[in-house]
Amino acid sequence: MRYAYLGPAGTFTEAALRQVVSPDEAQYLPQADVVSAIEAVRTGAADRAVVAIESTAEGGVTATLDALAVGSPLVLLREVLVPVGFTLAAGPGVTLDRVRRLSAHPHAWALCRRWLAENLPDVVHVPATSNTAPASLIAEQVATGRPVSGPDGPGFDAALVPPPAVQHYGLHTLAADVADHDNAVTRFVVIGRPGEVPPPTGADKTTIVVHLPSNEAGALLTMLEQLAVRGVNLSRIESRPIGDELGRYSFSMDAEGHIAEERMGEALMGLHRVCPHVRFLGSYPRADGVPADVHTGTADDDFRDARGWLATLRRGEVV
Amino acid sequence: MRYAYLGPAGTFTEAALRQVVSPDEAQYLPQADVVSAIEAVRTGAADRAVVAIESTAEGGVTATLDALAVGSPLVLLREVLVPVGFTLAAGPGVTLDRVRRLSAHPHAWALCRRWLAENLPDVVHVPATSNTAPASLIAEQVATGRPVSGPDGPGFDAALVPPPAVQHYGLHTLAADVADHDNAVTRFVVIGRPGEVPPPTGADKTTIVVHLPSNEAGALLTMLEQLAVRGVNLSRIESRPIGDELGRYSFSMDAEGHIAEERMGEALMGLHRVCPHVRFLGSYPRADGVPADVHTGTADDDFRDARGWLATLRRGEVV
Amino acid sequence: MRYAYLGPAGTFTEAALRQVVSPDEAQYLPQADVVSAIEAVRTGAADRAVVAIESTAEGGVTATLDALAVGSPLVLLREVLVPVGFTLAAGPGVTLDRVRRLSAHPHAWALCRRWLAENLPDVVHVPATSNTAPASLIAEQVATGRPVSGPDGPGFDAALVPPPAVQHYGLHTLAADVADHDNAVTRFVVIGRPGEVPPPTGADKTTIVVHLPSNEAGALLTMLEQLAVRGVNLSRIESRPIGDELGRYSFSMDAEGHIAEERMGEALMGLHRVCPHVRFLGSYPRADGVPADVHTGTADDDFRDARGWLATLRRGEVV
Amino acid sequence: MRYAYLGPAGTFTEAALRQVVSPDEAQYLPQADVVSAIEAVRTGAADRAVVAIESTAEGGVTATLDALAVGSPLVLLREVLVPVGFTLAAGPGVTLDRVRRLSAHPHAWALCRRWLAENLPDVVHVPATSNTAPASLIAEQVATGRPVSGPDGPGFDAALVPPPAVQHYGLHTLAADVADHDNAVTRFVVIGRPGEVPPPTGADKTTIVVHLPSNEAGALLTMLEQLAVRGVNLSRIESRPIGDELGRYSFSMDAEGHIAEERMGEALMGLHRVCPHVRFLGSYPRADGVPADVHTGTADDDFRDARGWLATLRRGEVV
Repeated sequence: MRYAYLGPAGTFTEAALRQVVSPDEAQYLPQADVVSAIEAVRTGAADRAVVAIESTAEGGVTATLDALAVGSPLVLLREVLVPVGFTLAAGPGVTLDRVRRLSAHPHAWALCRRWLAENLPDVVHVPATSNTAPASLIAEQVATGRPVSGPDGPGFDAALVPPPAVQHYGLHTLAADVADHDNAVTRFVVIGRPGEVPPPTGADKTTIVVHLPSNEAGALLTMLEQLAVRGVNLSRIESRPIGDELGRYSFSMDAEGHIAEERMGEALMGLHRVCPHVRFLGSYPRADGVPADVHTGTADDDFRDARGWLATLRRGEVV
Repeated sequence: MRYAYLGPAGTFTEAALRQVVSPDEAQYLPQADVVSAIEAVRTGAADRAVVAIESTAEGGVTATLDALAVGSPLVLLREVLVPVGFTLAAGPGVTLDRVRRLSAHPHAWALCRRWLAENLPDVVHVPATSNTAPASLIAEQVATGRPVSGPDGPGFDAALVPPPAVQHYGLHTLAADVADHDNAVTRFVVIGRPGEVPPPTGADKTTIVVHLPSNEAGALLTMLEQLAVRGVNLSRIESRPIGDELGRYSFSMDAEGHIAEERMGEALMGLHRVCPHVRFLGSYPRADGVPADVHTGTADDDFRDARGWLATLRRGEVV
Repeated sequence: MRYAYLGPAGTFTEAALRQVVSPDEAQYLPQADVVSAIEAVRTGAADRAVVAIESTAEGGVTATLDALAVGSPLVLLREVLVPVGFTLAAGPGVTLDRVRRLSAHPHAWALCRRWLAENLPDVVHVPATSNTAPASLIAEQVATGRPVSGPDGPGFDAALVPPPAVQHYGLHTLAADVADHDNAVTRFVVIGRPGEVPPPTGADKTTIVVHLPSNEAGALLTMLEQLAVRGVNLSRIESRPIGDELGRYSFSMDAEGHIAEERMGEALMGLHRVCPHVRFLGSYPRADGVPADVHTGTADDDFRDARGWLATLRRGEVV
Repeated sequence: MRYAYLGPAGTFTEAALRQVVSPDEAQYLPQADVVSAIEAVRTGAADRAVVAIESTAEGGVTATLDALAVGSPLVLLREVLVPVGFTLAAGPGVTLDRVRRLSAHPHAWALCRRWLAENLPDVVHVPATSNTAPASLIAEQVATGRPVSGPDGPGFDAALVPPPAVQHYGLHTLAADVADHDNAVTRFVVIGRPGEVPPPTGADKTTIVVHLPSNEAGALLTMLEQLAVRGVNLSRIESRPIGDELGRYSFSMDAEGHIAEERMGEALMGLHRVCPHVRFLGSYPRADGVPADVHTGTADDDFRDARGWLATLRRGEVV
């Protein structure tokens, strides 16, 4: 199996991919960005893609959401959670008190803002193009015998990098577990082409994209009621512009349950009937294994029982 | 076919029954009250019952609603509308200016209150036990040669009776079309034992009785949402006490549509799942022939299409 | 104070009135029917009326509901609960095994149907015009020396009467506490002309009559949402026809809380804005003393706090 | 007045700022990023900031939304719409058929993806750090006498830039009005410190940030109902993670109407009562001047009338 992912080595995405399959058992195909990883599955260059879809700090990863929402159909097969703590790392000989300029991807910077304000209040932010780019630059300086900090260095003195990047690029750690929130986590998904849906486990999620029936007030209420009336809970809802004019949104949502379950099936059919566009993006096991909260009257047996009851009534056999 | 109905001859119920079947083609079985008419079908003493279920002035006929809500199952097969205008009638020789005491069933009195206040402001109400009882008493006086009004009469000088009773009992008309509202109408239903459901016509009603899932605020909202989310309109809703304690209600409702239709079937199943008790009382053509207002996405084709779409998704063939 | 009520002596209504005020302290004015009692307050012939408004077995007393819903304004000042158990009583010398014909008001008969089916399966129902009428007829037979049962009696052998009527009319008890439901209770209200509203006690009810904004599906939902969104619970809801055509309803409702409370005030204003007609029928202490269930964010302090917050924002002082 | 904005000269933000005030009448303070522009108002370094808040293609500008949602309070005073069409521009002598590498900010690239696929199918994307950065690089090449395209050029042959940048940087146009959607527009807001709220015009927007009362299903429905029941429409709703754990969202919303209006005031108070956090970000005129759609019963007069009615009832004067 060939797995496309946001590379290079040392990224959080690679850490997610390692949870899915070891590099001994599959081919890792690092990509320059999320969209390229997803497109690799569409073109057949990869069998699967592993991409971030949501983080505690940044919310939905819009590139992922948008790439899944349009184009040829893809499905989510699994989700993986990766705790997001950065390591403040530098090249050989650099100490924390000498750090004046700090390289970090803007997302990483946002996630550690409070920690930095407290621990390095005067540090200057040097934006990096990815979480591992500054590690790579330091390694390059080392390899070519140039300074790793100061005026002749790579433009910065230290960097916020994913923990796996420290060893991979030969850096040393100035501070570990740098993050403003203890529970900071990024959620990754494994993407494949449509085929068999993973069987229900009792603790599943279903991901969909829905366009609202109208631009009017109440359209969002109407859509949510299709789910609520069948007892289907949402664990994520993200608005995205449809893009043709202001005020038109699609919603990317994770609902608790599996498409094979009755309540989810009826809710999806309800959305399909009243919304102009519904895209099913897969049913798959929840990473946290928490079983869905099934309300009274919405278990599969309740639906089957109701169907039997209705059939009896329709035959004229009142019960 | 034997038809039980609220007799005797000359009642509004008889007028309704005549709309259903002529006395030449069926056996008319007059009953003392609505409950007896309904029970006659349960016991097999009659094949059908024709009873009032609702009137513009009085609302639901509680005796009918309650007799249908419990006991062995019965179904409504048809509805019939009868305009409710009374005739102010009297025995031979009585003129309007001599009417001091007026016999009327309390319901009839209520329906004509305003007319009477304007036209006979000082008249005294003598309650009758049925709409035709005073007509029968006048006829008896005539038959036995006694006065039809005044101190030695039947206790009153004139009566409010259903128009058919005038001729039947040999009365004469003092005023026709007596009623406070021009659109006053009573709705009757033809009741039978469960068997085949009348086929859908596109302009049908479905009658149900539903107990609320709980006594709490919001339970009624929850129940109504099961209908609204499938686009099922209500044309009648009546609360009735369940009878075990204050504050516990059942609701008797007429919904627009037929049980054979998809949206009605799914709405009924939804009620069956979340409400402790749902009794189906039949799907039958509307007397006024007005087709149901089918909202976008709730036609049978929409449901079938959604079912096909879901089946495709469940097979892993994303569309 | 003069109190109009449904007489004569010995009725359940009189029992309710005795809970309100003793005959030594007020003038009791028995009336022939509920409407007359209510009208006596309107005309000034009485200061107060005590009438039944709801019973566990029969639901809303439509005569009371309708008389309050239209006409010059009246308000409810208090509610009183009276347990409804009948006494099976007869004249001197009559024993239970000799009871063939039983006089009972149709409501009383309905409330005891199951008890009668078990204990007097073959008894014949002789409808009475009121709960106390048969007691009065027996007393009259006794007074005039005529038989109290059998062919020459008053037309029946025994009667279902309110307990206070047994002693008042000199009957004797064949069976006490006759009722199908242990919790059978009738709710009475004390009615007066508008004036001061009784102060809130924390355990109050507010009674209103509301016409729906339209005949369309969803109008009832819309109306109920005005209450739900302010956290106002309903303890009673009864539909009544408006009377002009089929399918047009008003709703008579008891809401938990007092008009002096913020959430109730805002809910009433909401109804006033979106419904064509809202009639306030009073706020008064609940007979059972159960305090209202006040949801998070809907206490008076929450409303006052929100008002202060809004005023600050409107002045441009963002908080 | 000093205006902070996302510079340098030639950006879309500058175009928005020019709609607000000419450079002759105010001091323009270009900033490196949106957050810096907003912070300049907080620190007092600027009186106003003009920043993008939403675009048809990308949705909410998360940096703006997040910077407004926390930190010391700021308010929106005005909105400005700027059509987003790019100019495909290059240095002197470059023709369209020679463009192999195209510099564009990733957002610009996303907005023109379809146009590029059709017109320059093989072009290579060279990401730019801002919309004007490539224009500046070309100008630098010209100024220093180096090539403006090809292997020794700035790394690309042409660029997608905002129309004002063409003249400012001395480029020439290869294609104008490049965009996938004709209605592509970006919405900018003028931000200031709290003070006087701009007066209502009848065509206003109110921007708020709301945290949901709970993580449970239905919390979003509950929040939306507070708006719907007062007839307040939404024209924008964006979810943002609160950041402490997955599945916790705040919602940034634009509602139609002004805080000085009754329905908006009551809706805001309702949100304040039931949601743990509501931040008011201002009421200001809509750029399109479309008056709010005021539903029946939700005009200011309806609220005032209801308040008068309630006051009368509370005084015991039933109407």
